[in-house]
Amino acid sequence: MTLFDGLSAFPITPTDTDGRVDTNTLCRLLDRLVKAEVNSVGLLGSTGGYAYLTRTERQRAIAAAADFLGGRIPLIVGVGALRTDEAQYLARDARDAGADGLLLAPVSYTPLTEEEVYQHFVAVAETTGLPLCIYNNPGTTHFTFSLELLERLSQVENIAAVKMPLPKDDAFDADLAQLRQNTPDGFAIGYSGDWGCAAGLIAGASTWYSVVGGLFPVQAMKLTKAAQAGDTDEVKRIDSFFQPLWTLFKEFGSVRIVYAAANILSLSDASPHLPILPLSPADQQRVAMAIEALDRLGPD
Amino acid sequence: MTLFDGLSAFPITPTDTDGRVDTNTLCRLLDRLVKAEVNSVGLLGSTGGYAYLTRTERQRAIAAAADFLGGRIPLIVGVGALRTDEAQYLARDARDAGADGLLLAPVSYTPLTEEEVYQHFVAVAETTGLPLCIYNNPGTTHFTFSLELLERLSQVENIAAVKMPLPKDDAFDADLAQLRQNTPDGFAIGYSGDWGCAAGLIAGASTWYSVVGGLFPVQAMKLTKAAQAGDTDEVKRIDSFFQPLWTLFKEFGSVRIVYAAANILSLSDASPHLPILPLSPADQQRVAMAIEALDRLGPD
Repeated sequence: MTLFDGLSAFPITPTDTDGRVDTNTLCRLLDRLVKAEVNSVGLLGSTGGYAYLTRTERQRAIAAAADFLGGRIPLIVGVGALRTDEAQYLARDARDAGADGLLLAPVSYTPLTEEEVYQHFVAVAETTGLPLCIYNNPGTTHFTFSLELLERLSQVENIAAVKMPLPKDDAFDADLAQLRQNTPDGFAIGYSGDWGCAAGLIAGASTWYSVVGGLFPVQAMKLTKAAQAGDTDEVKRIDSFFQPLWTLFKEFGSVRIVYAAANILSLSDASPHLPILPLSPADQQRVAMAIEALDRLGPD
Repeated sequence: MTLFDGLSAFPITPTDTDGRVDTNTLCRLLDRLVKAEVNSVGLLGSTGGYAYLTRTERQRAIAAAADFLGGRIPLIVGVGALRTDEAQYLARDARDAGADGLLLAPVSYTPLTEEEVYQHFVAVAETTGLPLCIYNNPGTTHFTFSLELLERLSQVENIAAVKMPLPKDDAFDADLAQLRQNTPDGFAIGYSGDWGCAAGLIAGASTWYSVVGGLFPVQAMKLTKAAQAGDTDEVKRIDSFFQPLWTLFKEFGSVRIVYAAANILSLSDASPHLPILPLSPADQQRVAMAIEALDRLGPD
């Protein structure tokens, strides 16, 4: 297993309404990930609200997580920022606090060219010696990587992995074959988009970058292991318990749902940062029912 | 004339490579706008790189601009931010420094719902008594306003204007008719996308939110006045001198071009913030030729 194999679990980063990280609650969430033995923790991903946090609060979150994990689970930290110098500062902060790897999103305001994204990634990768995963999620970063750019980036030292969006029509075999053909051996190809990731693992993807794994790590590990074993019947069975949650993820975006679920489970009373609104009581009720459905999968 | 009528000129905000605003150079750029008697200054718009600047640097830029302008030209300030509380801080900063109006972009990372954008705008509009313009530019903010949302927002106190992207196929008449029908009398409808804005003014739009006006205010005022007078022949004549610049704006994005142009004119030695790259020498040469073409329009 390398740093970027298996289930990478992305927790929320609970904050107060002023954006100050509640490190106690964060560690309580991390404790669930340690106990479930997820393969890595993905701190400060999109679910972790990195884009909404100041550098100081991001430093506090990383320090608390690294101290709490103490090397028991590898720690991957999101260091995306609009400016290259800022992303470099954040990469150094992550390294200094004890991160094992970095996740870099090409956050954009002015739409970026391929060359700009290439140089941005090289600059950040060179800043620390840490292995870096390319965060490819056009839905949030508003940048679409071409195959040529991924190929070029995969040849940069330290750039070791890519987190891909789900392929169209779940065509994982073709997507993986094409990516493998154009990236070095050992370059880790993984997916995000929870509802499709078990199929990605079955097709041979290295990693499931998972929102649900950050809050329901036991159940997500079950799905991961069945998928890694290629047990399609068992995957189908386990996946059926997740279905109500997948429906909500697609309807509201996964961030809004995991915040509501963490509230319902009394694991956190935090809300996403405004302007993102909490769910209505009726929709929260739907989340509660989806959690009940997942509970029926059983704890072990 | 109201605050949101005519040519609103958006200058770059020159900074050093650490993102510190060069207020002397900014004021030199503003002086050109004062002399050309543009109708308003749009500080910290997309061209002004607001998304890349810290709150402190934004404060410095606003204070310098407000002091320099001293009420000679109305000052509209961009206060977009990912978080509602941050946008509210920025709105207060702008008001305290002497801004006459605000421009608010629904900057997003997690894609926003209509209700979230509505509440975000209401929260910021309520924070100050300043008239506020809705910044509708899906290309940078990644949010698309529905007509229903614009209608709802136009009824909020202080929300006095909208900056629209160019309508498809230059269908300004239909676009304006539809917007007018759904917004209160006096609600100012303007456009950005420099190459189409003269046509927008001819069709009766209130405002041209202009990148080119931030650097070439004399020429942009000529185009504005001809368009406002409905003199289509004169508009066509003037516009022909802008054509090489429009071609470059469309090819590279206007931000990269105006930075290069300001460098060529020795008005500023600043570059956009990395990861945005300066133009290649060959492309800079094209910008120089476009400036020469515009020069042939003559200064008066």
